[in-house]
Amino acid sequence: MNPINAQIQLVSRPQGEPTLDNFKLVEAAVPELAEGQVLIRNHFLSLDPYMRGRMNDGKSYAQPQPLNEVMMGGTVGEVVASKNAAFSVGDKVVGMGGWQQYFVVDANQRGVIQKVDTTHIPLSAYLGAVGMPGVTAWYGLVKIINPKAGETVVVSAASGAVGSVVGQLAKARGARAVGLAGGADKCRYVVEELGFDACIDYKEHRDLKSLSAALKAACPDGVDGYFENVGGMILDAVMLRANAFSRVAMCGMISGYNGEPIPMSAPQLILVNRMKFQGFIVSEHMEVWPEALKELGGMVATGKLKFRESVAQGIASAPEAFLGLLKGRNFGKQLVKLV
Amino acid sequence: MNPINAQIQLVSRPQGEPTLDNFKLVEAAVPELAEGQVLIRNHFLSLDPYMRGRMNDGKSYAQPQPLNEVMMGGTVGEVVASKNAAFSVGDKVVGMGGWQQYFVVDANQRGVIQKVDTTHIPLSAYLGAVGMPGVTAWYGLVKIINPKAGETVVVSAASGAVGSVVGQLAKARGARAVGLAGGADKCRYVVEELGFDACIDYKEHRDLKSLSAALKAACPDGVDGYFENVGGMILDAVMLRANAFSRVAMCGMISGYNGEPIPMSAPQLILVNRMKFQGFIVSEHMEVWPEALKELGGMVATGKLKFRESVAQGIASAPEAFLGLLKGRNFGKQLVKLV
Repeated sequence: MNPINAQIQLVSRPQGEPTLDNFKLVEAAVPELAEGQVLIRNHFLSLDPYMRGRMNDGKSYAQPQPLNEVMMGGTVGEVVASKNAAFSVGDKVVGMGGWQQYFVVDANQRGVIQKVDTTHIPLSAYLGAVGMPGVTAWYGLVKIINPKAGETVVVSAASGAVGSVVGQLAKARGARAVGLAGGADKCRYVVEELGFDACIDYKEHRDLKSLSAALKAACPDGVDGYFENVGGMILDAVMLRANAFSRVAMCGMISGYNGEPIPMSAPQLILVNRMKFQGFIVSEHMEVWPEALKELGGMVATGKLKFRESVAQGIASAPEAFLGLLKGRNFGKQLVKLV
Repeated sequence: MNPINAQIQLVSRPQGEPTLDNFKLVEAAVPELAEGQVLIRNHFLSLDPYMRGRMNDGKSYAQPQPLNEVMMGGTVGEVVASKNAAFSVGDKVVGMGGWQQYFVVDANQRGVIQKVDTTHIPLSAYLGAVGMPGVTAWYGLVKIINPKAGETVVVSAASGAVGSVVGQLAKARGARAVGLAGGADKCRYVVEELGFDACIDYKEHRDLKSLSAALKAACPDGVDGYFENVGGMILDAVMLRANAFSRVAMCGMISGYNGEPIPMSAPQLILVNRMKFQGFIVSEHMEVWPEALKELGGMVATGKLKFRESVAQGIASAPEAFLGLLKGRNFGKQLVKLV
């Protein structure tokens, strides 16, 4: 008899902040495999801020998450049955397995799942530092900010899956890395464990003037590159400290995901400081993945790239963990362990 | 006896909108020339929106205009006396001669004045289409927007010295050119004389919804490139119509020059549409001037690049003409004729 698959579906679209009522746990038997298909047992599910954007129906860079279907999401897992010659039982794979325990896929679709090597790299890292978040950090830092040694790079959400990699890559290039994170514990981790030069606790700075003063102290030579994960007041404060010819990689604006857009207070600074702003989605730049993963995998395997994970237990915990992620309650990469 | 030089000085910094009281007409005899110096009689003075920014004392990309000194500004004129072997009486030159009738310069300083050829190009054009405004248009269009044939390029202040060149260069590259200008006369000129595909009279659209609808009608395939001269609501409206991977050349934000910064309403669209914004100052890109001036000069000489001038008469009229420029009362390149 086939195993039972528990999955989380989106059953209504959040108005503003999502709630547990937007999600529903549904169970069904795993179907029989057709020729070419593979059955994967998901070991870890990745929770990421971009998922909030997909829960809306409006215009965005991706199709909205359909209602009454399994929530989309990246996963790593193990092949437990295969009718495809390219995949064997026991293979470890990464793919878009969704918020569920099992995942059936036609493995003849190129790129839909990828085998991964767990000899030197833990399986979960393929959802973080050696996966989409890591490549996101790499693209924004290397292709947009492109820091020179001695320049100052600032990154928001610095203890998170993306931000932590941005700072460590910047340090590896001889730049000064300054993080922004919420709370003393996260800031201590960013400096002491990840090796950033400084980290500002944004929760201690509730207005633009205070935050801008903290940035001035942490960045005495100004800001040459900013990796934007949050938007809102933090972006305004960084722009006040931006140097001429500074670059801003626009990766996420989590502060505006739940409601009305948050304006940029002083766009004329783009002109005054001859800044470059560039928005990007890493899935549109597949050409950089091999180069990025090579650097990231090598750094993780040799212990030069550190990361931290917040792990929720069991598929039923995914909605709660996701709401916590949107509030910054996670510490490092947010995962759900499914086995 | 040396001629009397009348000049306009800045005597106080405007709070908000400038007034005539901020300026003063001062007369003094032209000094004797020292070795290496040249005396130039200015024929035309260029008035440009950037001058408003320099009248402030705050942080900007350029030194503030000093008080009680001649206003800085670009000029074209004729050498009337020379103690420099490289320049002869009768030579036509372009330089930063200031708001005055005469101008003494050490012509051994490289690049401080440049000889120009008026055989096929009128002298005044070296302050417009074949000068700083033209190269500004060229840089933003070619180096930042870089339109492909069939793409849509929008430019604000489309009948002005910069905007008119942006649209004509875009058309020359096979793109669709859409202008924004204030008033039916300017819009008619932009379409009928300059050859833009469409022009929107922003004065007929007093709110974002109306302006955005007009842009949708004028740009049925969305906006791929935007050349920003004004800021404020027009930028917000264009961002609502921006295509994926669109580029915004930030050249000026005249709407915010007089007072409080005008916010950008929806900066998350930079991310959603993976846009690139880039601020620039053309004087920092001297390496492109020869290539740009070659194309611009060739197009003017052969009648392929059209332009229009608003000409005020006499140095005393410069302050009034400048205030009019800030209000969009000029029609085409604003000059002051000094001879």
